Amino acid sequence: MECLCNKEYKKLDKKDIDFLIDILGEDRVYTGENINEDFSHDELGGISKMPEAMVEVLNTEEVSKVMTYAYENNIPVVARGSGTGLVGASVPIHGGIMINLTNMNNILEIDEENLTLTLEPGVLLMEIGKYVEEHDLFYPPDPGEKSATIGGNINTNAGGMRAVKYGVTRDYIRGLEVVLPTGKVIEVGGKIVKNSSGYSIKDLICGSEGTLGIVTKAVLRLLPLPKKAISLLIPFPNLETAINTVPKIIKSKSIPTAIEFMQREVILAAEEFLGKKFPDNSSDAYLLLTFDGNSTADIEKDYEKVANICLEEGALDVYISDTDERKEAVWSARGAFLEAVKATTTEMDECDVVVPRNKVAEFVKYTDELQKKFDVRIRSFGHAGDGNLHVYVLRDDLAKEEWEKKLSDVFECMYKKSRELNGLVSGEHGIGFAKKSYMFEQYGDDYIELMKNIKLAFDPKNILNPGKVCE
Amino acid sequence: MECLCNKEYKKLDKKDIDFLIDILGEDRVYTGENINEDFSHDELGGISKMPEAMVEVLNTEEVSKVMTYAYENNIPVVARGSGTGLVGASVPIHGGIMINLTNMNNILEIDEENLTLTLEPGVLLMEIGKYVEEHDLFYPPDPGEKSATIGGNINTNAGGMRAVKYGVTRDYIRGLEVVLPTGKVIEVGGKIVKNSSGYSIKDLICGSEGTLGIVTKAVLRLLPLPKKAISLLIPFPNLETAINTVPKIIKSKSIPTAIEFMQREVILAAEEFLGKKFPDNSSDAYLLLTFDGNSTADIEKDYEKVANICLEEGALDVYISDTDERKEAVWSARGAFLEAVKATTTEMDECDVVVPRNKVAEFVKYTDELQKKFDVRIRSFGHAGDGNLHVYVLRDDLAKEEWEKKLSDVFECMYKKSRELNGLVSGEHGIGFAKKSYMFEQYGDDYIELMKNIKLAFDPKNILNPGKVCE
Repeated sequence: MECLCNKEYKKLDKKDIDFLIDILGEDRVYTGENINEDFSHDELGGISKMPEAMVEVLNTEEVSKVMTYAYENNIPVVARGSGTGLVGASVPIHGGIMINLTNMNNILEIDEENLTLTLEPGVLLMEIGKYVEEHDLFYPPDPGEKSATIGGNINTNAGGMRAVKYGVTRDYIRGLEVVLPTGKVIEVGGKIVKNSSGYSIKDLICGSEGTLGIVTKAVLRLLPLPKKAISLLIPFPNLETAINTVPKIIKSKSIPTAIEFMQREVILAAEEFLGKKFPDNSSDAYLLLTFDGNSTADIEKDYEKVANICLEEGALDVYISDTDERKEAVWSARGAFLEAVKATTTEMDECDVVVPRNKVAEFVKYTDELQKKFDVRIRSFGHAGDGNLHVYVLRDDLAKEEWEKKLSDVFECMYKKSRELNGLVSGEHGIGFAKKSYMFEQYGDDYIELMKNIKLAFDPKNILNPGKVCE
Repeated sequence: MECLCNKEYKKLDKKDIDFLIDILGEDRVYTGENINEDFSHDELGGISKMPEAMVEVLNTEEVSKVMTYAYENNIPVVARGSGTGLVGASVPIHGGIMINLTNMNNILEIDEENLTLTLEPGVLLMEIGKYVEEHDLFYPPDPGEKSATIGGNINTNAGGMRAVKYGVTRDYIRGLEVVLPTGKVIEVGGKIVKNSSGYSIKDLICGSEGTLGIVTKAVLRLLPLPKKAISLLIPFPNLETAINTVPKIIKSKSIPTAIEFMQREVILAAEEFLGKKFPDNSSDAYLLLTFDGNSTADIEKDYEKVANICLEEGALDVYISDTDERKEAVWSARGAFLEAVKATTTEMDECDVVVPRNKVAEFVKYTDELQKKFDVRIRSFGHAGDGNLHVYVLRDDLAKEEWEKKLSDVFECMYKKSRELNGLVSGEHGIGFAKKSYMFEQYGDDYIELMKNIKLAFDPKNILNPGKVCE
């Protein structure tokens, strides 16, 4: 197969810009200093680069026209939503054209007979939740970052808090419209519930971080809205006791919607960041659980059983949040953890490993050891119920060189440990640019070569989001 | 990209057979008349061809050695499980080597902390259900054909009865070990719950009908076993009334585990075939529903609500099956429908379309029209709750030529109708050899070219199960 490396891309010239203006109008084509600096980076990827042109698109036809032109002229293209990614996947590291999809943000149809929602990629996650709940329906994937677009969520196969019970974004995509790197448009899946009609291109696009195609429309699967939910905040004397309780909860067969773990330092940071008190901050470690169902009686048995397991395993107390107000207090703090930790330091980077559920305690304990060994602040929280951790290494006042060395050493150790525990590099944030080397190390040459071949099958000129995932 | 067509494959000679005997031993290499005729066809694909050699393998290393040799020597390979497919996917249409995986049938591990089952591809579906239930756990996918292997189920992304509530095989695969067409072995996924670490090769293998790799190990996701289940058999005056009730059930938010539809003719055939009476056969059409949960109280509200909806919509009665014996009577009949219909005729072929749930009635009504228009017997049953129909066209005493013409005409009409309703060619039986032309017609050139490119990305010499799915 053709090699993906060291391609010479065409630099944009006046003719190219004129073409873009011709199809989109002057108001929707930005170049040079007219492009906001925000478009050169995401929230955390540790890399930045300005596109040569940023264009705002309004429909599939425009995306296809831009893509066709870029393909014919060998110009790299990156599609971008809200830019809330954490691994640099939307950064145009080779310049070229950035296609801004945030104005393709229409909800097209809610189908209550087939339980589907059809929408454009720029719709925000927070808008989806609100919209479907008004119809007494439910879109389960629930990442902390609610200002992300659904297009971005599809491209990273976003997970979130409710994955324990409901699964991840992939499980809620019924159909996609995709503009291929050649500019051609295909539709995969649809409103249908089952599908064994050829290779599942839908599942390949999902999680491909904008490297195989540009999603221009999605059909999402909805569920009936659970009528009741309660949250339990459960303090433990230490993190190990808390996390070691999780496999026992899973084994109990009363599966909660969410099982999050958190430590006091992170709670204090969130209190500071939000200017609001958390219901309790006196213990070292907490589990935060949610249960949902159609009636209080339905969920009572489950949460009582689980509360008892926690107390038997050493929990100090069980706080029940059954009003909207109380739940909001806990979950808004949980939703702000990333920003809160970020606000306590100068710079940070993140490890989003996923390990088998019964290995979470061992991994977190190991990061505590690394904190001491390398004398660097490490904060973690995350999804204990699905084995997906978010571990943040904080720069604080370290000099640039020292920081880079420490970060690299700590990451090397953490990903090595994750491999030992049969974990993987990313649970939900993706590989993008920042985590490539760790994935390469884990998968080995045969696996990576296969991924590169798949990339070429979609994009023989390697012009769509080059330099990401498997390159 | 390279063309997949008209490859000249190497015919097996003595040297090749000697190599196979060398690594597998004489007892596990079959050639010529020593190969049972069964291996030349599946249950329904309308095509048959003997392999040049059939080999029984016992482990991944053996599969890899055979595959590596075949790759180096340009010999086509087909992997086969129980051969219960319906579209000819496991038929060695270019001869070559058939790898029989049925003796790789060990259950390797049940992990109750991570709720996973690790097994070899030759384990039968009926064995999985039995094994995990003894551990109070549950593997939800439930196709009618329980003597299928899990490897075959993964390769077709098998669906089955419980897809309405629980989804399909894809939703229960956590990890796979795969021998690639080159003979190299990769592991994808694992026991982890979330995964955003590169392209989802796991989801591409699932549903690829043995054309992209040979699954040699799988890690399945399990659920806690629901403690109670009840079934409702609901007679309706006619099929249209029955099926039109389904979207109203879905909309009610009391989602059953299964929603099957059936007509009297099929029930009579099953009674005849099994020599057992069905609980009721006096009505023209029936819905068969199941509800499951952790207690009778949990499910009572749901099924009462749904029973009332059915009665309001015109159901003649509601029979509740709450004992194991009664449920067995209904569901064993349902499980025997395919064989029962087959026993009433000389030959048949099947259309496994999937349409949006609210289009099922329209589709079935259309097949009734076709029955009259083409003067051919057509029988259908299937999964009303997920829009996946099984429509059988029966040859009876038609002469060969007339049968082939009628079958082709009827299929052409049905797949055209399915496209009009935004359906797809296959809900769960796959494309294999028999349904290729209908998929090609639906997807168009750009989509098919992309699939072919993906095939080449895995199998540049096109030696693994050539002539299937997208060729």
